[in-house]
Amino acid sequence: MPARGDHDARRRDVSEAVWRVLADRGFGGLTLRAVAAEMNASTGLLTHYFPSKKALIAYALDVADERTANRPRQTTPEPGLEGLRTALLDVLPLTPEAAAMNRVWVSSWDGSLADPELGAREKDRYEAWRSRLRPHVEAARNDGDLPPDTDIDEVTATVAAFTHGIVVQALFDPDRFPPTRQTTLLNNLLHSLAALA
Amino acid sequence: MPARGDHDARRRDVSEAVWRVLADRGFGGLTLRAVAAEMNASTGLLTHYFPSKKALIAYALDVADERTANRPRQTTPEPGLEGLRTALLDVLPLTPEAAAMNRVWVSSWDGSLADPELGAREKDRYEAWRSRLRPHVEAARNDGDLPPDTDIDEVTATVAAFTHGIVVQALFDPDRFPPTRQTTLLNNLLHSLAALA
Repeated sequence: MPARGDHDARRRDVSEAVWRVLADRGFGGLTLRAVAAEMNASTGLLTHYFPSKKALIAYALDVADERTANRPRQTTPEPGLEGLRTALLDVLPLTPEAAAMNRVWVSSWDGSLADPELGAREKDRYEAWRSRLRPHVEAARNDGDLPPDTDIDEVTATVAAFTHGIVVQALFDPDRFPPTRQTTLLNNLLHSLAALA
Repeated sequence: MPARGDHDARRRDVSEAVWRVLADRGFGGLTLRAVAAEMNASTGLLTHYFPSKKALIAYALDVADERTANRPRQTTPEPGLEGLRTALLDVLPLTPEAAAMNRVWVSSWDGSLADPELGAREKDRYEAWRSRLRPHVEAARNDGDLPPDTDIDEVTATVAAFTHGIVVQALFDPDRFPPTRQTTLLNNLLHSLAALA
């Protein structure tokens, strides 16, 4: 039993170190050496966990998925326009923690575009995200908060794309895209989409 | 003079090889070895051009900038809503060449977020892009194609963000985001923004 506990504790240490490297240097800076240095451990110990660079990257994506799934969020209200707004605000880099998380995901795109397996995983991740947004768009239309002829898939893709784009602009230019402006831009977009309702 | 010609020809070969590596493997796959292999040249020869990895990356970004500036575009009509639409269509991955170009830029974000100098360069690049879009938004408002209370900066940031986001979704999921759908999504967004005009 103590051995098990040690194992779990060490695993948490590894996850924590991987995350710090990603948040600081991105996937381009993710090496066994960098993770080992974060843990004050030897590169040899890390080789035991990650026999290849690919294994380290796959693990890092698991860590990112887990952190993303467990991140603090605003309570999402009932499905509808407010639920959509909240779900999108929960993605935007409005806090340092959310900025770090987005920075990790944006930095993952280089490797994912170069590797068919990772690319398929990312594709599925974004389709799953749109699937979580879709019921909000549908409810908003049914509530009369979006026009009756709203195409659910199209509006969902539009707000998802907009959100990703704001993430990128805000990561590179946080002074021009502070949290208040990100929020205003989102509110105005939703207002425009609702304009003909 | 012949030496000069050789030099220029070699430089074009290097640019071409760097671009092929970027389009195929992204910045994460950009190494002296990969560029040398594309040229059927020795890594030693490349070391002569690029004394460091950083020099290679800076050169690759120059190549990407140059290719982007010189890419084929639709003739942009007068400033206004149509000009805005055309300028955004000229960014979207509607052709294999435009997809390769976008793939290179998206893949550059990892390294640019990790390096303050490259990050500042990317920040300036996107502000320059928005500066080219802004006159179209302003003219569209003055033409009555966008509402009179349109905030130029906000609408410019919104359409730029949307376009970046469509780029990302289309690169990972070209089957769900074929050129026709990208175009429809853009048209619908512009229609929504114009709705109260």
